[in-house]
Amino acid sequence: MSTPTPALVKAYLLDLQERIVAALEAADGNAFLRDAWERPEGGGGISRLIEEGAVIERGGCNFSHVTGAQLPASAAAHRPGIGGRAWEAMGVSLVLHPRNPYVPTVHMNVRFFSTSTEDGTPVWWFGGGMDLTPYYGNADDARHFHRTCRDALAPFGTDLHARFKKWCDEYFYLKHRREARGVGGIFFDDFNALPFDDSFAMMKNVGDAFLAAYLPILQARKDTPYGERQRDFQAYRRGRYVEFNLVFDRGTLFGLQSGGRTEAILMSMPPVVKWRYDWHPADGTPEAALYTDFLPHRDWLAS
Amino acid sequence: MSTPTPALVKAYLLDLQERIVAALEAADGNAFLRDAWERPEGGGGISRLIEEGAVIERGGCNFSHVTGAQLPASAAAHRPGIGGRAWEAMGVSLVLHPRNPYVPTVHMNVRFFSTSTEDGTPVWWFGGGMDLTPYYGNADDARHFHRTCRDALAPFGTDLHARFKKWCDEYFYLKHRREARGVGGIFFDDFNALPFDDSFAMMKNVGDAFLAAYLPILQARKDTPYGERQRDFQAYRRGRYVEFNLVFDRGTLFGLQSGGRTEAILMSMPPVVKWRYDWHPADGTPEAALYTDFLPHRDWLAS
Repeated sequence: MSTPTPALVKAYLLDLQERIVAALEAADGNAFLRDAWERPEGGGGISRLIEEGAVIERGGCNFSHVTGAQLPASAAAHRPGIGGRAWEAMGVSLVLHPRNPYVPTVHMNVRFFSTSTEDGTPVWWFGGGMDLTPYYGNADDARHFHRTCRDALAPFGTDLHARFKKWCDEYFYLKHRREARGVGGIFFDDFNALPFDDSFAMMKNVGDAFLAAYLPILQARKDTPYGERQRDFQAYRRGRYVEFNLVFDRGTLFGLQSGGRTEAILMSMPPVVKWRYDWHPADGTPEAALYTDFLPHRDWLAS
Repeated sequence: MSTPTPALVKAYLLDLQERIVAALEAADGNAFLRDAWERPEGGGGISRLIEEGAVIERGGCNFSHVTGAQLPASAAAHRPGIGGRAWEAMGVSLVLHPRNPYVPTVHMNVRFFSTSTEDGTPVWWFGGGMDLTPYYGNADDARHFHRTCRDALAPFGTDLHARFKKWCDEYFYLKHRREARGVGGIFFDDFNALPFDDSFAMMKNVGDAFLAAYLPILQARKDTPYGERQRDFQAYRRGRYVEFNLVFDRGTLFGLQSGGRTEAILMSMPPVVKWRYDWHPADGTPEAALYTDFLPHRDWLAS
C-alpha cells in the first residue's frame, strides 16, 4: 500500500473547487461569493456560493480541511486503535438548486480522512459520490448522469459502479416517506480497498466527472419555459431535500452537532421551500410521473 | 398515589382538541379539515388542520393515541422494569403558523404515557408545555403568554413555573445557531411528582390555558398592516423552526423514525420557508430587535 499524502489530496481538492466554480460561474454568468474561514480547533475552509444567480437560485461549492489532536472515541468506533490519535478530514461538497424547475438539483462530495495508530501505521479512507434530484424527470438526463458515474469508476474495478450505485440508492432514501431523494448516482465511504494512489485516483475521477455529469443537463434544460405550476411543484419537492438533509444526512448532522460552520453546512438548504398537507399529484400529470417513473429505484443503464 | 385512569385522560384530550379547534375556527372564519387514522400496530388519531386560512396560513391540532404490546428497551432505558411491557401514549399536539408576520407562531403539547411493571405496578407520566415564536417581538405579548403559563401551574407548586420555564428555554434551543427558538414558555416531561389526580389536573390546567395564552395575542396582532419586507423576514425565520423540529425535536424525530404518520407529524412545518446565506438584520431595525431583545433567555415576569 503506497504512502498516503494528505497534502496532495488537499491540493487536488482546492483545484477541483476552483475548476467547478469557474465552470459554474461561466454557465450562470454571475460570480460566486468567496468566504474563507478558520476553525479555532484546527483547520478551516473556503465557502464559494451563489444566490439569486441567473441559472442557480442558490448553491455552494465548499472546501473544508479540519484537523484535531485527538480523535473522539465515537468517531473511531468502527476502526480499532485510532481513538485519541491526531486526525485530519478534508473534502469538497457541492449542492446546486437551479431556478428553472426543469433543471435537477444536484449534490456532489469527495472527501478524505487520515489518521494513524499508536505505532504510526497510517489509517485513511476516501468517500464521496454525486446524486441527481429532478423535479420533472428526464430519462436521457438520468442515463447520462449514471453513465458518466459508471465511466469514472470503470478503471478501478468492474464491480465498483454497481456497489456504489446501490449504496447511493440506500443512502439517499427518505424512510419516513418511503421515497428516494431523486434518481440516484453513486455513493461510497470508508474506501481504501485499493492502494492509496489508486484509491486517490478513483476519488479524483469521481470529482473530475462532476462537470461532465451535470453541466450538459443544466445547459440543455435551463431555458425550458415554465410557469407558476412548475415553480410551485419545485418548491414543494424541495421540502423533501430539507427533510433528508436535516433528518438523515450524516454529514449535515455531524457538522451541526460538532460546532461546524452552520451557514456553510446549510448551503444545502433550498432558497424557497413549501410544505402542504398530504398532497399528491393528479394521475397522468408530469408531476405524477416523477413518483411513478423516476423515484422508484431503477437500473438506468439497463436499457 | 391515586390510580391512573388513561380513559379519563383520553376523554380530556379529545375534548381539548375539539375546544381548541372550535375556537381557532371561529378566529379564522374557516373550518379545519378532519382526518381520522388508525395505526396497524395499535391505536390511531385524529388530525385537524387548516391551510390557507384567513388568519392561519398553515396549522394543525392533532390527537393521537398509540398502543403497543411490548415497550422497546430503548424507550424504557430510564425506567427499570418496564421494558417489554404493554404501553400506551396519547397526546394533543398543536402548531400554528399565522399568515401575518406580526402574529407569533405557537406550539402546544400535552401528553400522557402509561405502562406497568411485571408485578402490575402502574408506571405513568405526563408531559407537555407551550412556547411562543414571534417574528416581530412584542414584550406585552411575551409577558401575557408567560403570565398565563405561570398562573396555570401555580395551584400545583410554587417552584413548578420556574423549573418548567427554564426547561423550555433549554429544550427549544438551536445549538448550531446559539439561538433560542422564540421567547419560550413552559416545558415538562416525565412528570409524576404529584399523585395521579393532581398530575392530571396540572396537565389539564396547561391544556386549558392555551387559548387564554394565545388567542388574545392572535386577535390583537392579526390585522396589523404588513408588506413584503415583513413576509420575507417571517419566511426566513421560519427556517429556524424547520431546523429545530427536524434536527432537535424529540417528538418529531421519534415519530418519523418509528413509522408515525408523516403528514400529521410534519404539520409543524411552515407553509413557505426561505434560506439565505449568512444573513443578518441591519442594526436598529425591528428585525434586529428580535435577536437582541427577544431571543436571549429572559425572565419575562421580572418587571
